[in-house]
Amino acid sequence: MSRFKTLFSILISFTMTLQTQAQEDDQIIRKIFDGALIEGGCYEDLRHLCKNIGGRLSGSKEAQKAVEWAYNTLNRLDLDSVYKQEVWVPHWERGEKEVAILYGRGGREFEVPICALGGSVATPIDGIKAGIVEVFSLEELEKLGEEKLKGKVVFFNRPMDAKLIDTFHAYGGCVDQRSSGAATSAPFGALAVIVRSMNLRLDDLPHTGVQRYKEGVRQIPAAAISTNGAELMSRMLKKDATTEIFLKMSCKTHNDKLSHNVIGEIRGSKYPDEIILIGGHLDSWDVNEGAHDDGAGVVQSIEVLRLFKQMKHAPERTIRCVLWMNEENGAKGALAYADMVKKKGEKHMVAIESDRGGFTPRGFTVDGANDAIKDRGINRLKSWEQLLKPYDLHKFEKGYGGVDINFLKDQNVTLMGYIPDSQRYFDHHHAPNDVFEEVNKRELELGAASITSLVYLLSKYGLEDEK
Amino acid sequence: MSRFKTLFSILISFTMTLQTQAQEDDQIIRKIFDGALIEGGCYEDLRHLCKNIGGRLSGSKEAQKAVEWAYNTLNRLDLDSVYKQEVWVPHWERGEKEVAILYGRGGREFEVPICALGGSVATPIDGIKAGIVEVFSLEELEKLGEEKLKGKVVFFNRPMDAKLIDTFHAYGGCVDQRSSGAATSAPFGALAVIVRSMNLRLDDLPHTGVQRYKEGVRQIPAAAISTNGAELMSRMLKKDATTEIFLKMSCKTHNDKLSHNVIGEIRGSKYPDEIILIGGHLDSWDVNEGAHDDGAGVVQSIEVLRLFKQMKHAPERTIRCVLWMNEENGAKGALAYADMVKKKGEKHMVAIESDRGGFTPRGFTVDGANDAIKDRGINRLKSWEQLLKPYDLHKFEKGYGGVDINFLKDQNVTLMGYIPDSQRYFDHHHAPNDVFEEVNKRELELGAASITSLVYLLSKYGLEDEK
Repeated sequence: MSRFKTLFSILISFTMTLQTQAQEDDQIIRKIFDGALIEGGCYEDLRHLCKNIGGRLSGSKEAQKAVEWAYNTLNRLDLDSVYKQEVWVPHWERGEKEVAILYGRGGREFEVPICALGGSVATPIDGIKAGIVEVFSLEELEKLGEEKLKGKVVFFNRPMDAKLIDTFHAYGGCVDQRSSGAATSAPFGALAVIVRSMNLRLDDLPHTGVQRYKEGVRQIPAAAISTNGAELMSRMLKKDATTEIFLKMSCKTHNDKLSHNVIGEIRGSKYPDEIILIGGHLDSWDVNEGAHDDGAGVVQSIEVLRLFKQMKHAPERTIRCVLWMNEENGAKGALAYADMVKKKGEKHMVAIESDRGGFTPRGFTVDGANDAIKDRGINRLKSWEQLLKPYDLHKFEKGYGGVDINFLKDQNVTLMGYIPDSQRYFDHHHAPNDVFEEVNKRELELGAASITSLVYLLSKYGLEDEK
Repeated sequence: MSRFKTLFSILISFTMTLQTQAQEDDQIIRKIFDGALIEGGCYEDLRHLCKNIGGRLSGSKEAQKAVEWAYNTLNRLDLDSVYKQEVWVPHWERGEKEVAILYGRGGREFEVPICALGGSVATPIDGIKAGIVEVFSLEELEKLGEEKLKGKVVFFNRPMDAKLIDTFHAYGGCVDQRSSGAATSAPFGALAVIVRSMNLRLDDLPHTGVQRYKEGVRQIPAAAISTNGAELMSRMLKKDATTEIFLKMSCKTHNDKLSHNVIGEIRGSKYPDEIILIGGHLDSWDVNEGAHDDGAGVVQSIEVLRLFKQMKHAPERTIRCVLWMNEENGAKGALAYADMVKKKGEKHMVAIESDRGGFTPRGFTVDGANDAIKDRGINRLKSWEQLLKPYDLHKFEKGYGGVDINFLKDQNVTLMGYIPDSQRYFDHHHAPNDVFEEVNKRELELGAASITSLVYLLSKYGLEDEK
């Protein structure tokens, strides 16, 4: 009977501990959200990054201003350590405003909105004028062959699939045209490529983005055209297959430049060697303010540290904010960071990336080098489902973490991607309208609070159930 | 053994039926979403309603244009019945642009953005100039009494609570200032009231909305001020309590006018007497295009019928689209509709309302006259959770259905409210920026498809588990 009593009282006290912990977690998460929504700093940080610095392509002076700003901003948070990591990055410049004119039936001319793809070579100084071949996939080129493609501009016009609910899947199903269109067309004698913008809407904004040449393959100019422009071009070609396009671009690749990742951290009080990384990328394209991509991720990552400081909460594990340079056209920052981690032998428990825009929160993805890592991460997230549900967080699924954290995958790090709602992301992605005004303050702040809550739970409980 | 075999084969066939049904449901829901996203009509409907008709306050000629447009649009869908229901509605007009000027310390003057609240009386023709008393609740008036309030303009300045994740809760916690501010202040001798706009952001847009006078209580002018204006006014009062305000408004209430609800339906193939209602309200405020409020709900409700027609799917139960008149300032349409339903003895199984904006879908609320109704509705919704999850629908909770369907509550109808994400709604609600351009095409379409999917399931399975 006495034994039974002991067992019973242990059970009671254990249950009470669990309840008390859940209550405490509830309260702290509530405090995190209150802090972000009432006295958060991420919206004003974003205003500064967008309005006072602006577009910040790797190698530009704006990119370096962003590095200095990030370093100073982290330094003001009274962290345990703030430093810059040197990174050599590509330095490509767009040059003068690009020009594209369509020459159709009966002498009709239409100027259409285009922009050079990142890394593209220039056209000859007087431009290119040539016939157009419309295709819908890289595979089609093989069938058409040199006979049809030589001396032509190849026009890739496969649209994003509007039926896919997650717009990132629609992007994934199209982006090969942009990234490999030039390299795949050049061997067939094509003069240049024009790619339909990765945009689900019909509008007049061309969306830039990286494209990659292949070693040993002739480098030809590559540009994106607005979706309306692509529709017009396609219609004109249907009416008259001899429609021509004039293209003029003066972009240029300079020598690599020295730049930096910016890193700040709060050391863990109990397990300082177990690092929880949260990050976004400091660089953006040059055609906009990089507000959603990835100003949002940068200011949210900084906000995680600020909220811990604001609450005077000392995390059990180390929380490190990493702001990478050069995600957009090279990922040299992420490469250098992963390299440093390996060399130092640092143990990253989890790496979280925010690089899907400052939209209303949905949840998190989990990725890793093997199923065991992924399963453990998902199970951990799901064990916190009830704590996160009041904040409309409901998606906890296996899936890609992000470009920058992906370089840590082979070091057995659990990768997590912050997922905001994806519906509006590609309206702005790499386009001139990715500006501060298009980010909603509450949506941005709720994202910062969602990530901070996850970091809090990870820092307190780790990845394994300790009971 | 033979019995066991029989039982076993029944079980197998039952399980297979369930599986086949789930597969069929999966396919049809997929088809609904494809239809809405690829060849949907709701976005172009909304463009017409916003751009060709515009603001459509009850009693205005635009409201009547909206009635004709809705009637013609439903008629083109080849439904089993389309009709208009007569409704007498209030007819209030804003008159000339309202003026408000603050007179502060040292002769400083600031014009601030205001707009009359719906139903307000005008100021005297030369305006009102008076001192200001800032309060934060209706209750405060009692304490201040006639001594402090007589001859003054009462300034209600309690902001929406940014900490509440559901912005409708924040609205609910503030809106008494707007709806009852004038009626509560007048008995203390106040000359007019100014109410801080129901807006979570700080900006320069005043948000209108209905306010109600009390029978037998003096009617005094009531206006909303932009949140920035409210902040300025509050700061000025802190510096100098003798700060005055000048107000001029020329609004007027005319005699009631004849208007209409517009109704269209597809008769159920199996249970024609069991009606599933889906609706939104045709009227809007006069200061904007009524895009989110409630153009979105109108075009989504029409889209439900269009998608059934497009799929050539004959619903088992009757699907009725009801477009109410006068939700904003009287709900006369909803009253008349509920009255007609009662008189005809029609059986509404479920009534669904879409009146929370055209934002990205989250789920549905369930309401009803008693717990049994609510529980049954929630359980039914939850039984379809797995079917709806791929479309990011995850909120299925008890909660308010909507202003217009609420009048059906006492007829034991199960009420359901469509819930899109609420974060951006009050940036636009009743303000000049509730315009077509602020509605995202995909978000609107996903909402229409979400509601249609729910209607499909309700039409096929009803509210009770039939097994």
